[in-house]
Amino acid sequence: MYFLSWLSHLCRALSRPIARTAQPTWGSFSRSLALSSQRRIPEFNSFVARTNTCGELRSSHLGQEVTLCGWIQYRRQNIFLVLRDCHGLVQVVIPQDESAASVKKILCEAPLESVVQVSGTVISRPPGQENPKMPTGEIEIKVKTAELLNSCKKLPFEIKDFVKKTEALRLQYRYLDLRSFQMQYNLRLRSQVVMKMREYLCNLHGFVDIETPTLFKRTPGGAKEFLVPSREPGKFYSLPQSPQQFKQLLMVGGLDRYFQVARCYRDEGSRPDRQPEFTQIDIEMSFVDQTGIQSLIEGLLQYSWPSDKDPLVVPFPSMTFAEALATYGTDKPDTRFGMKIVDISNVFRHTEVRFLQDALSKPQGAVKAMCVREGANYLKKKDIESIRKFAADHSNEEVLPVFLKNKENWNSPVAKFILEKQRLELIRLMEIQEDDVVLLTAGEHKKACSLLGKLRLACADILEMNGMVLRDPALFSFLWVVDFPLFLPKEENPMELESAHHPFTAPHPGDIHLLYTEPEKVRSQHYDLVLNGSEIGGGSIRIHDAELQHYILGTLLKEDVKLLSHLLQALDYGAPPHGGIALGLDRLMCLITGAASIRDVIAFPKSFRGHDLMSNAPDSVSPQELKPYHIQVSWPADSEAENESFTPSRKL
Amino acid sequence: MYFLSWLSHLCRALSRPIARTAQPTWGSFSRSLALSSQRRIPEFNSFVARTNTCGELRSSHLGQEVTLCGWIQYRRQNIFLVLRDCHGLVQVVIPQDESAASVKKILCEAPLESVVQVSGTVISRPPGQENPKMPTGEIEIKVKTAELLNSCKKLPFEIKDFVKKTEALRLQYRYLDLRSFQMQYNLRLRSQVVMKMREYLCNLHGFVDIETPTLFKRTPGGAKEFLVPSREPGKFYSLPQSPQQFKQLLMVGGLDRYFQVARCYRDEGSRPDRQPEFTQIDIEMSFVDQTGIQSLIEGLLQYSWPSDKDPLVVPFPSMTFAEALATYGTDKPDTRFGMKIVDISNVFRHTEVRFLQDALSKPQGAVKAMCVREGANYLKKKDIESIRKFAADHSNEEVLPVFLKNKENWNSPVAKFILEKQRLELIRLMEIQEDDVVLLTAGEHKKACSLLGKLRLACADILEMNGMVLRDPALFSFLWVVDFPLFLPKEENPMELESAHHPFTAPHPGDIHLLYTEPEKVRSQHYDLVLNGSEIGGGSIRIHDAELQHYILGTLLKEDVKLLSHLLQALDYGAPPHGGIALGLDRLMCLITGAASIRDVIAFPKSFRGHDLMSNAPDSVSPQELKPYHIQVSWPADSEAENESFTPSRKL
Repeated sequence: MYFLSWLSHLCRALSRPIARTAQPTWGSFSRSLALSSQRRIPEFNSFVARTNTCGELRSSHLGQEVTLCGWIQYRRQNIFLVLRDCHGLVQVVIPQDESAASVKKILCEAPLESVVQVSGTVISRPPGQENPKMPTGEIEIKVKTAELLNSCKKLPFEIKDFVKKTEALRLQYRYLDLRSFQMQYNLRLRSQVVMKMREYLCNLHGFVDIETPTLFKRTPGGAKEFLVPSREPGKFYSLPQSPQQFKQLLMVGGLDRYFQVARCYRDEGSRPDRQPEFTQIDIEMSFVDQTGIQSLIEGLLQYSWPSDKDPLVVPFPSMTFAEALATYGTDKPDTRFGMKIVDISNVFRHTEVRFLQDALSKPQGAVKAMCVREGANYLKKKDIESIRKFAADHSNEEVLPVFLKNKENWNSPVAKFILEKQRLELIRLMEIQEDDVVLLTAGEHKKACSLLGKLRLACADILEMNGMVLRDPALFSFLWVVDFPLFLPKEENPMELESAHHPFTAPHPGDIHLLYTEPEKVRSQHYDLVLNGSEIGGGSIRIHDAELQHYILGTLLKEDVKLLSHLLQALDYGAPPHGGIALGLDRLMCLITGAASIRDVIAFPKSFRGHDLMSNAPDSVSPQELKPYHIQVSWPADSEAENESFTPSRKL
Repeated sequence: MYFLSWLSHLCRALSRPIARTAQPTWGSFSRSLALSSQRRIPEFNSFVARTNTCGELRSSHLGQEVTLCGWIQYRRQNIFLVLRDCHGLVQVVIPQDESAASVKKILCEAPLESVVQVSGTVISRPPGQENPKMPTGEIEIKVKTAELLNSCKKLPFEIKDFVKKTEALRLQYRYLDLRSFQMQYNLRLRSQVVMKMREYLCNLHGFVDIETPTLFKRTPGGAKEFLVPSREPGKFYSLPQSPQQFKQLLMVGGLDRYFQVARCYRDEGSRPDRQPEFTQIDIEMSFVDQTGIQSLIEGLLQYSWPSDKDPLVVPFPSMTFAEALATYGTDKPDTRFGMKIVDISNVFRHTEVRFLQDALSKPQGAVKAMCVREGANYLKKKDIESIRKFAADHSNEEVLPVFLKNKENWNSPVAKFILEKQRLELIRLMEIQEDDVVLLTAGEHKKACSLLGKLRLACADILEMNGMVLRDPALFSFLWVVDFPLFLPKEENPMELESAHHPFTAPHPGDIHLLYTEPEKVRSQHYDLVLNGSEIGGGSIRIHDAELQHYILGTLLKEDVKLLSHLLQALDYGAPPHGGIALGLDRLMCLITGAASIRDVIAFPKSFRGHDLMSNAPDSVSPQELKPYHIQVSWPADSEAENESFTPSRKL
């Protein structure tokens, strides 16, 4: 784990500036957002004291009397002051003549980040003093009147250095962090993208935006659902992980096309880059098949895609789960780069190398390899060691780096066991070039692929750290993954089955007959949408037949069907065929903005331990306040110690 | 209470059909909704198996080959079948020839409410068989192929009689209830109205849609907040009643214009027509005053108002809290009709009638009256008795019905005490006509007004039951109520003050000096929006000065300021002046649609005891499931009995 976190740390440090430079800066972004929606620019000055925003002023405003409201960003020699509002920066000239002494006093004495209102005239900057880097750099404001609206106390840190602060400090003073250009950009872009999604769904395709309850009852196996005590002794609501049941019931209710930007809840304890509450674009349709949902989503993303990015090309490529596993070692391949996994079992079918022999003789045994292009140039000795250690940490199988054409680096211990014939066959099969490095492993198909899949990403991190350009930050590589298995063997008891996704997923029409004989072989009508190696959405065609649903829930999954009697009953009363999908909005926006964490696209995120570091939630509650809910706290036995360790400090 | 509920029952029975007839019927509404948005009709048939919706077919489609998916609404003599989808009804001709026997079998044998897919040709109905009441009544479908998509079991009741069923049954089988025209209309209109609100805020006025957390910490005095146990012993999140703190912090964060269609939570136990979770259109702006927010909201409602209603006229009228109380006896006057309260104290200043003398001699004592036009014709003797009983039930003061010009009905006991001079003065003052009835009371100003305010509504109910047209269901009468008091004396201890609304409300600029001397006299910058006698929104200009906020929270309200230290600190770090408002979406939609209850504009509402009657939430949870949250149930002492009474039955 140490290796991985070190890797991702370095990698992030490296990739961040790249992502940043690709993004617009103060003053330009509000216009670009507005223009992107292909309609007139919103009126940002309606209903308020200002006549203009700071960021919108240009030479075309010369001579206009304006009133501006904003924050004092900085001041130069008591002559100039830069005023900031949500749309950008503008330079204000502090009057120096005696008659304007009171105005000067206000503007010179107010601490930085104080809020002021100024009125004056837009004038040209003197020749030579224009600032081409500043969107308002051709003009400045000659102030006539000024009013201090609110004075700012000494800040805990300078606003401009904020990004260098720890995330804990940023979260504690979130209202200051939100003033940064990046947070303003992220939140405004998120709002715009969601608005366009709504236009597409609601105005173009007749979807109905329907709110579903978040106070619901526990779903079978819903161990990750927060509980909400009610005023009835022993009765609890739960906060659902998704509106799954409700959206299916809406289809039974004939609503035909539902969507919701739905708040969902998942209690997973402490998990980095997960939030206890998150948002999904939740969609369900009647009379639809998998292709229909996929086309809908492709159109949705294309329509709502930010205009400062390259337009999306649809349809997105599609890949079966089996292919994704075999080629990328994961069900969410990052298809921005190659380094695909190749099955080289046949090359070694008659090998005398013992560990390859052993692997191949077992069921599903295989020899797998992955070619790291120019690896000999970009991977240092310590990187190779890191890779081997990474493999050792993640698998029982070893991984062997092999240099097939680069004789100078021919130092792999296994190299001498590879016959010349095999070497040539591998070079042909994998199109090996001079300086390429092959990573080779052997073992059970899934495990070997999975190991190489992880190594593929770890190598990509290393290669990029060492200067290779592998994953273009401007590239958005979408991929459908389809034909998942419907069931998986339970981890704790492999003789029993559990749903690979959820028990309402319909089986693949071609595999229905297997349900009663070999259910573990049944593929599902589930589909995942993957972007740059992250799962950003998933959905399925649902079971609309009550009998089939009953068989799967009760007989195959051995769930208590009584807990879902309302759903089973609903299927009996004229349920249409239906299917849907949910897109994870936080992760999607995180990828679009190139943010380091989903916390950067959420206004008030929780820390990874689930705390609000600003208000200190969750917090203690008096026994008196628990009384109406008929609950009491069970303090852990060694309460002192445990309590201590749980005290929510200001740490993440 | 019996009288009131009897009144409202009858009144509803009466007013319902009126409201209903004003609304469109199956088949017409999807088009009207679509047209109302003044853009092209959404594509309802994209991505799915059908080529058309049932409800959209017209003579212009004659000869077209269509595929339809829908529910079997009814069947006539195995010859005709009416197919329903979310957009309306269409008649399908069941083929009778031998070659189509399998199609006939499917269409004749499928139970009502089964789901079928049919393909065929749009043909004219034979002359004389057109149905002008049906939007698709000129055509029918000559079927070629049919497929049974899902068969429907025998329903617990007939769909068409559904509205006559009890609400409990409707909620238990909500997915069937949702198929009714009225629920489809309500939910689709709600979606459309919210979409237009978003367009207005986001696209026209540059608001940013920002999601705020619902897992927060308890606010001081937040007794109505649901608690959510966390995995830390003794620590709880709470589900906030509104995003109040977050939206103010967003303004401090420079977001400038925020809105959110926000899910809010309020645990009030059992309350009719309240929901434990509800939705508000939540808005906050920087650099704005009261007039700015009011104009914004007027524009918002005008823009998003359904096109099948008369357009709204803005600006809305405005009234001070004092005026509303004096004239309508309430802070949410129904201004659709008159019957205003008049102060007639001066007429009786020198009266010898004892109870009037007594009332006038007390502080704030007054004599108040209200004229019921044509009361002598519309109020029967038992109605007058009901009114007197209602007054006795609601107040210590009596109310006296007085007939001032109708000698024949001059039977009020007080009439003989009114001198002829006083009678003439009252007739002049109140513009009394023949057959008017005056309701007169005396007592402390607020109490007397409040009593007459309640009687005003009770009388209106009676008059309408007796045939008078008083409140036009097509009339939407908006009103701003302003200049509320900032503080109220605490009910339990009138020497202490509490916030009339919430502690972040800014005082009226004209009254700031009184804060330190006579705080109870300070007016606030709070404003309520009232529609037809219901409060549908409220907001205020907020305090942006940390010192003032500290003084009000700590010194005047004696709250623990530490619990709000993050907000106080934020105000110190350059908070802009700001204000906002929240509109109650459920209630607004209830009034717009003329629904009998907010439950009719919510897809899956809770019963008034807070139960989901479909899934049976809230539900029991095993001690094992409570363990991670370090809580246990405190069963009430007489657990047997109490438990019994709390068992969530299928009753409301």
